[in-house]
Parts: sequence; structure tokens; C-alpha cells
Amino acid sequence: MRTSHTLLPTLREDPGEAEIVSHRLMLRAGMIRRVAAGIYTYLPMGLRVLRKIERIIREEMNRAGAQEVLMPILAPAELWEETGRWGFYGKELLRCQDRHGRNFCFGPTHEEVITDLFRREVRSYRQLPLNCYQIQTKFRDEIRPRFGLMRGREFLMKDAYSFDRDEESARMSYQRMYHAYEQIFTRCGITFRAVEADTGLIGGNMSHEFMVLADTGEETILYEETGTYAANVEQAEVLPPIKTSAPPLLPLERVQTPNAKTVDEVCQCLNIPPDRLVKTLLYQTGTEESVAVLIWGDHEANDIKIKKHLGVTDLALASPERVMTITSAPVGFAGPVGLSGIRILADQAVTQMTNFVVGGNAADLHLINVNWSRDIQVDSVADLRQAKAGDPSPKGNGLLSAAKGIEVGHVFLLGTKYSKAMEATFLDQKGKDTLAVMGCYGIGVSRTAAATIEQHHDTKGMIWPIPIAPFHIHLLPVTASDHVLHTAQTLYDSLSESGIEVLWDDRNERAGVKFNDADLIGAPFQLTIGGKGLAKGFVEVKRRSTGEVTQVEPEHIASFFQEHLGSYL
Amino acid sequence: MRTSHTLLPTLREDPGEAEIVSHRLMLRAGMIRRVAAGIYTYLPMGLRVLRKIERIIREEMNRAGAQEVLMPILAPAELWEETGRWGFYGKELLRCQDRHGRNFCFGPTHEEVITDLFRREVRSYRQLPLNCYQIQTKFRDEIRPRFGLMRGREFLMKDAYSFDRDEESARMSYQRMYHAYEQIFTRCGITFRAVEADTGLIGGNMSHEFMVLADTGEETILYEETGTYAANVEQAEVLPPIKTSAPPLLPLERVQTPNAKTVDEVCQCLNIPPDRLVKTLLYQTGTEESVAVLIWGDHEANDIKIKKHLGVTDLALASPERVMTITSAPVGFAGPVGLSGIRILADQAVTQMTNFVVGGNAADLHLINVNWSRDIQVDSVADLRQAKAGDPSPKGNGLLSAAKGIEVGHVFLLGTKYSKAMEATFLDQKGKDTLAVMGCYGIGVSRTAAATIEQHHDTKGMIWPIPIAPFHIHLLPVTASDHVLHTAQTLYDSLSESGIEVLWDDRNERAGVKFNDADLIGAPFQLTIGGKGLAKGFVEVKRRSTGEVTQVEPEHIASFFQEHLGSYL
Repeated sequence: MRTSHTLLPTLREDPGEAEIVSHRLMLRAGMIRRVAAGIYTYLPMGLRVLRKIERIIREEMNRAGAQEVLMPILAPAELWEETGRWGFYGKELLRCQDRHGRNFCFGPTHEEVITDLFRREVRSYRQLPLNCYQIQTKFRDEIRPRFGLMRGREFLMKDAYSFDRDEESARMSYQRMYHAYEQIFTRCGITFRAVEADTGLIGGNMSHEFMVLADTGEETILYEETGTYAANVEQAEVLPPIKTSAPPLLPLERVQTPNAKTVDEVCQCLNIPPDRLVKTLLYQTGTEESVAVLIWGDHEANDIKIKKHLGVTDLALASPERVMTITSAPVGFAGPVGLSGIRILADQAVTQMTNFVVGGNAADLHLINVNWSRDIQVDSVADLRQAKAGDPSPKGNGLLSAAKGIEVGHVFLLGTKYSKAMEATFLDQKGKDTLAVMGCYGIGVSRTAAATIEQHHDTKGMIWPIPIAPFHIHLLPVTASDHVLHTAQTLYDSLSESGIEVLWDDRNERAGVKFNDADLIGAPFQLTIGGKGLAKGFVEVKRRSTGEVTQVEPEHIASFFQEHLGSYL
Repeated sequence: MRTSHTLLPTLREDPGEAEIVSHRLMLRAGMIRRVAAGIYTYLPMGLRVLRKIERIIREEMNRAGAQEVLMPILAPAELWEETGRWGFYGKELLRCQDRHGRNFCFGPTHEEVITDLFRREVRSYRQLPLNCYQIQTKFRDEIRPRFGLMRGREFLMKDAYSFDRDEESARMSYQRMYHAYEQIFTRCGITFRAVEADTGLIGGNMSHEFMVLADTGEETILYEETGTYAANVEQAEVLPPIKTSAPPLLPLERVQTPNAKTVDEVCQCLNIPPDRLVKTLLYQTGTEESVAVLIWGDHEANDIKIKKHLGVTDLALASPERVMTITSAPVGFAGPVGLSGIRILADQAVTQMTNFVVGGNAADLHLINVNWSRDIQVDSVADLRQAKAGDPSPKGNGLLSAAKGIEVGHVFLLGTKYSKAMEATFLDQKGKDTLAVMGCYGIGVSRTAAATIEQHHDTKGMIWPIPIAPFHIHLLPVTASDHVLHTAQTLYDSLSESGIEVLWDDRNERAGVKFNDADLIGAPFQLTIGGKGLAKGFVEVKRRSTGEVTQVEPEHIASFFQEHLGSYL
């Protein structure tokens, strides 16, 4: 393609709206343009990347035995009411009414629609396993869309749904998808890690997220340096503490801690390290029940673990008014001693402590030398805190390390959550109605493009992995002589004919402008044709990722690129 | 693909919901399934056809110099307000509000979004002509969705938009698209005709519809048998009548016509042929103005021509109450004689009449021997009637013939309608701000699939043209012997390897069931492997379109199909 015939509006300046690298570079390189908050147009350069990712996904999904279908974007409310998600999904679900007043949503995910199809069309165990996928525009009405394609309101997804006759077979389908995802992200040329993850709004029994590793990632993952265990920080399990012999118990004391509400303030006031303190966090659940959760001073509570332990889906810190009602004190002085009419949960780590500090349930008051049994009764003890780097691995291979990641794929073993709610059954070998065991599997196509940039860029621009680069070669004639232009035309034609994708900068611009745009757009190879080099009988190939420059005779260019690109064509 | 691993739920019975052939056959052949009124899931067999049509469209659009982009489905109301279409488009426009209460529509067409992109990104005449297209799911909230994919609420479209520096260049862009459309539909293997058409809700200066010819079509087209002229019946021009010498004028008479309100009733009552009668149709416009339109008894009024003549967008027959107010008579007795306070338009044909019959503006009264000038003053005379088969061609090549068609494509020369409303300008060669001249070009991808079936089917099922068939070959082993199954496997493998698409019916079903499904699904070739034939050294190839059967030795099958399919691979 020639740039003069391409809608490729590159920007020299960083656009104000961009918050992260991929967003900034995709705008600057003319790949996307904003239409509304979280809603973008893909210009030709951006769409080419999406199409390449789609193609890899399609090939690997087909190879794994999945079948491509296309469900509608509009889903009738009735289907979502069957699973309860019409009410449960909240404001992120974009909804509309048709002219007759019927309710629809714009599917952010399609479990209901595919399960409805299954129960109508699949009769027998002989038709299983079944795995259907689609690549489709999805909607999520984010409260604060941001980061360009990373957290948009309209985005491109691959979603797949498997149906199996039993749990064992469903686990095999799950493994096939897990493997297909490894193939997909490997083929895209990105460094990723599959981690154990929470099942969230989708539900189910098991799930893994596929994380692109990048310092700019919003998610934290914890992993064994020497083993295979890896998990989202929200999901990572914490081992029970090792029992140590306890020092003698000291008498409980009340101490004044004026205005000391945070862990830091209390530690400073009492001149103690944070590991002497137990935080008392007050929550309220969706049913308006209140709960106290005890967490060690230098740990963080993990809301997902607390929710699971309580068996609730809604959980929020209690309001200051509620804190006052429960503790008779403002926020910052809650403590478990003498707290009544409320369940008290303790993270397993704090049960190993002796002579610790807690809030005194009165303004400016803390208690010191607090001890279990003697001073506090708890209702249950569990793993309720966030794991962190340095924790022992739950699988036993040394300590956990932390890394930042961007979620680009997510696989779920759903079990019978949806098939039960929607009565999606088949006849088993004995002719008995049996619930299908399901899995679902998503890939954020547009997000994968953005995550790749977060992982592959430098100060000058993007550095595309060959398999998903918008073009293989950026052809840069930098002298306006007939010889140079003729050579450019000849090389463009011959490379294009062999299936190599060439973006030809045929603008009448200075070499510096062309080089800057080429580094910005980040095609894997830059092919520069200059008058001086040509006089000496060569053109120059620069590899974008390494900066390495090779002089090649024009007549050997085709074979040079066949060698470097052949396996990707 | 093996049918045992494919979601291909064929039906033996006609489904009750289907109203037309394509709808019935797509349901029966397991290509689509209904999710809600006018909203479908495409199963693997249906999606394969869409993807093939998409591919042909993409290749021809690229060849014609258009660039693929992807605009969002959600379009902000503000853009549609700039062109006035937010109000003008009515209830067919599906709308929603986001969680912050901002209005969006689900674009049925994208003139506003692309024009906004143009005005932000294109500066200079050097960047023109520009033509951007996308293939995207579109929405239209039809009041009565029906006919399966033919008139759905969610459907797949290709839409393209061109921007040119002047009218002449815009006409060239239009011609390039017109030609590309001819290529696309020709390559799809369907018989079509491009016809002059009305510009409707899109607007503009000129448009052509691409019509698939089929007896089941909803549209009527008129065309020259011997020339090139063809038009949608709504658009077809009518030549002025040839002047004839008028007979002597007879005196006006009032006659009682009890209960005779329709043309038929009046003719019967007065014992005259319809061509003695002039109908007086009373309309009201969006601005509530009333208009009388005089049309010959055996002609039909053309509302689009009347709207254009009046320069209005809304036009409807006047209510009975309004008719009573204007004529002092119930519906059926309106006439132009003595009618005051209202504009009177006459179709050009009626001005050639003498001594004709009109309504008398009183219940049960008509006037006979009415004549122009003496009895009636009209405000204007124009071509206001529907053309019909047998009319002289407006281009002079004989009489017009009629045919039924299905609109699958539509090209519009928009002019500056949108660029003016949205101030989409570029700097011309003299550095002057100039409005871009636009065109827009649509193809109904899902509708093309349905229209193809309307044109290519028989009583047994679909008959796919090779280029867009879901599979090239339906492989039918009809004996369960090892020899037959081994041959099926061998042929399946060797054909698949050479890029030929084979659907292998590996079910344990009777030959009759397999043959029926194969005829229903309509792959161009059926390859039957039976025990008896194989013993004699041959397999059978049936061409679906002709029923012609050829016996081929298994070892020659690959070359047989290379010969018949090679140009389509």
C-alpha cells in the first residue's frame, strides 16, 4: 500500500487524551480515532492488526475442533432473566428497548444465547463435545472508560462455549482451549503467562487468565520462579502460618491514640512496627449484614476471598454512619474486643499473634496486649488476605515473585451453572436427561493489540512482532531521483507479488520525517533506498526491534525477505 | 468437515415461522436459527456463506481502491443531530442511553461518523479521492421484521463512503463502485440488474439499486427489453402523453352514484371503463398542508414523485375527517371541480382527457363530461404516477417490461448533503476551503445470501453457486463397508489437502436421508461412494444444479474436481 493512498494520519505530538503507551502510540500512528468515550474507529493500520490476530485465533480455534458461529449482538432480556443475570449484571450491561417496548441487552458475553441454542438443537450425547466460537463486537458500559482499547465500551472479542457430557470431558475441552490459547498468544509473538484466576461475574468452578506481561499492566500476578504455579494476586492462595511458640501473655491495656486512625498513624503514635497491629475492617454485604474482618497490620484484605467465604456477591466497606452505629466510634478505631451483634472473621495469619494492638471502639482509643481466647472470640478463621511477593508458594516451590500483567484471555470451567438455570440437557447413553457441563473462553482481540504494544515499544514507537504487524516492510525511498523511485517501484512490485506486505512511503517528505514515522508505526523491517547507497549498489534493511542495519543488493532483496519472513507468509 | 462434528441441525419438515423460500430453506438446512423477531444466530453452514460473500466484497473493494476501516456500532446522538437525522430517521433508528444518560444510536448507516472522521483528519485535495469501507453488523428496528434474513433487525452490511474534490471526480468514484458492484455480484454467481432508484432517507443526487432477479422479490423493476434503461418502479420516469385531437366538449352533468366510492364501483355504476375516470387523491404533508392529486382511473399515484414535486419528506393520505372538511363529503367522492383553498396537482396523463368523470364533493355524487380550463384550474402538472409494464421507455427503446427483484446493493451520489451539514472541507489547489463531494455504497451481505437462495433453489432445496457455496462437495458414503469408509477417508483427505472444501456426511444414516440432506444443503457437487459402484471401480459425482451424474474412478477424483473447481480455489 502506498501512504499517499492510505488514511494514515500520523501525529508528531502526543495527543492529550492518551493515558498509557499503547493508547498514545495507536493515536499517534493513525491506527485508531476516538468517536466517544471508550468508543473508537479503527483506521486501516489498526484494522490490519486486528485482522491478523483474528486470523491466528480462527486457525487455532478450528484446529482445536471449535466451530465458528455468529450470534446476534442483541439478546432478549427473557434469556438473561432465566439465569438471573439481567438483574445481577448491573449498569455495565448496555440495554435498550425496541419500538414495541421489549427489553434487549447488547451482549457483553453470550452464555445465555448459546445455551438456548444448545437446548433447542442438541439432543444426544453423540453430538458432544460441542464447542462454538464467534468473533464479535461486544459492549460494556464502563463507568470510566479509559486507556484507549484497553478498557473500552465497544470492543472486539472472541468468545467460545463448550458443552460436554460430564465433568471429566469438560475438563478435556477446557484443556484443549487452554492449549489453543497458548498457541494463539505464542503465535502472536507476545510473552504471556496463564494464571489461576477468580471466576467473577461469569461464575464456574475454575478459571485461568492469560496475562501479557508488561510493566504497565493493571493486574498483579504472583508466580513461582522455579515452579509452574502462577495466579492473579486476587486468586493466589496463602498458606497457613507456621505455628511458633507464643511468648507470655501480658495484661490488656487501654491507651489514648489521639487522631491516630491509619496503620501508620497508630504505629507512629505507639512507636510499634505494623506487625504488632491487627486491623479491624467493617464491611456490609448486599443483604445489609455487617461483618468485621481482622487482618494483620502489614497485610491487605482480599475482598474476593471474603465474598467467597461469606457466599455473597456484593461487599463494600461499611459507611462511616454504620461504623459509628456498630462501634460507637468514628472510622479508624474499630476493634474486636467487646464487639457484639456482628460476625467476626479473622485471617489465618493473625491467629498466630500474641500481645497485639487493636482499635478500642471509642474515639482516640486503642487496646494493647490483646490476645485470642482471653479477649476475643472469632466466628471463623480463613485465608482472607491478599497474597504478596515473598509469600511461600502454595505449591511449595520457594517464594512467590510478582509481575504486572494485562489480561487478554480468560478460560472458565463453568460446570452446570448455565445449563441448570436454563435446563439445557441432552440424552445420555442410557437415554436419561442430563445437564451439559459447560466451559467458556474469551479473548480480547482489540485488547491483545494494545497489550502487544505495551510489551513491544520503545521511546520512538511501536515494535510489532512479525505475525501481527500491520505490514512486514516499510519501504522508504529517501531521495527523489528517478533511479531511487524506479528501484522502489521494482522492489515494491516484486515483494508484493510474493505475498510480502509492504507499506510504501511515497510522500514527498524529508528522510527524517519518513524515518520517524517508520519507527512510530513499527513495521518489523524498514527498507531504505537512498541515492548514495544505490550508487554503491545496495539498499539498507533495518530491523526495527534491534536497530541492526544490513546492506543488501537490490537483486537479493526478495530472497533476503523470503528467508526472514517466509515462515510467516 | 464431518457432519458428526458439525452443528448442522437439518429439519425434515417446513418450520412454521418461515414465510419465503430462502427463510424456510435456511432454517431447514440448519444455517440460521431465530433468537428474536428479525434477529438470528448464524450456524456454521450459514456463516460460511457470509464469509465467502465478505471475501469477494473485500477483494473487489480493495481492487477498486477503497480502504477497509471499522467504525463503532454505537454513534453519539450529537453527530446525528448535526445532519438532522436524529429527529428525521424515526423509529427505525435503534437508540439507547449509556449509564450517564448520553444518547447513542446503533448505526444503520455511517455517513455522520465517517464525515466527522473526514473533517478531523483530511486537510488537502492531495489526500483525495478517499473511499473507506467496512463490513459490520447493522441495526434497523423494523416495525414488522419478516422473511428471515431478508428484512431483519440485525444484519450484516458492507458500507462504503467516498470523498472527492468535485462533482466530476465524485462521479468517477461512483462509477468505480458501480463497476465493483457488478464484479461482486457477478463473482457471487447471481443474476442481477442495476436500476435507477430513489435516494430515500440517505438523500443525494443519483442512485442505483442492484437487484437480484427473483419471482419472489418485493420490488418491481421496469426495463427495456432491447436497451439498457432499467429502474425501480418507484423511480421509473413516465414520458409525457402524445397529444391527440380532442373530441367536442359535452356539457357538464351531475349524476347520482349511490355508495360508489372506488374506481370499480363508479365504473360499474356509470357503465364506463376506468380510463374515463380521474381519481382525486387528497394528501396531507408533514407541515399539515393538504394537496389534491389528480390521477387517471387506471393509473397508480407515485408518492415519491409527489413528495419530490412538493419538496416534502412526509406525505400521507388525508384522514377521513380531513377529507370531510375539505370536500364536505365522505371518502370516495372528492373531485377537483369547485375545490378551493387547496393546491391541485395533476398527473400529466390526465391533461389529455376530455369529457371525463370526477367525484362531486358530495355524498353519492359524481360529475360527468368534466373538462380542463372550462371546469377545473390546476396549480401544476407533472409526472406523478407509477410507471408500469407496457409504458414507452423514457429512453425511447420500445416498451418497458416488468420483473421482480430483491435489492442487495445500493449506490448513492450524495453530493454535499452531509459535508455541508457537518462542514467537512478540504483545502483545494488554491488553498481555499472546499466542501467534499460524497458518495455512499451499501451491500446487504446477509440479504445477498438469502437472495441467492431465492434465485437458486428447487423443490428439494438450495442450489449454491460455486463461489459462495458453504462447501464445494458433499461427500456421501452410502454403504457402511470398510472399503467404502476407507475410500471416503482417502478422498476426503486428498481433496481437503488441495484446498477443496468437503462436507463429509459420516452419520450412520440411510442413503435416502443423506441424499435428501445433500439436496437440501445444496453443495454444488455430491460425491456418492457406494459398495456396488466401488466394486465396479467407480464413485458417482452428481452436479446439484443439473442433476447430471458422472461415474469417476476414485483415483481420478482429484483431477476431476481440480478441473471443475480449480478456478474457484
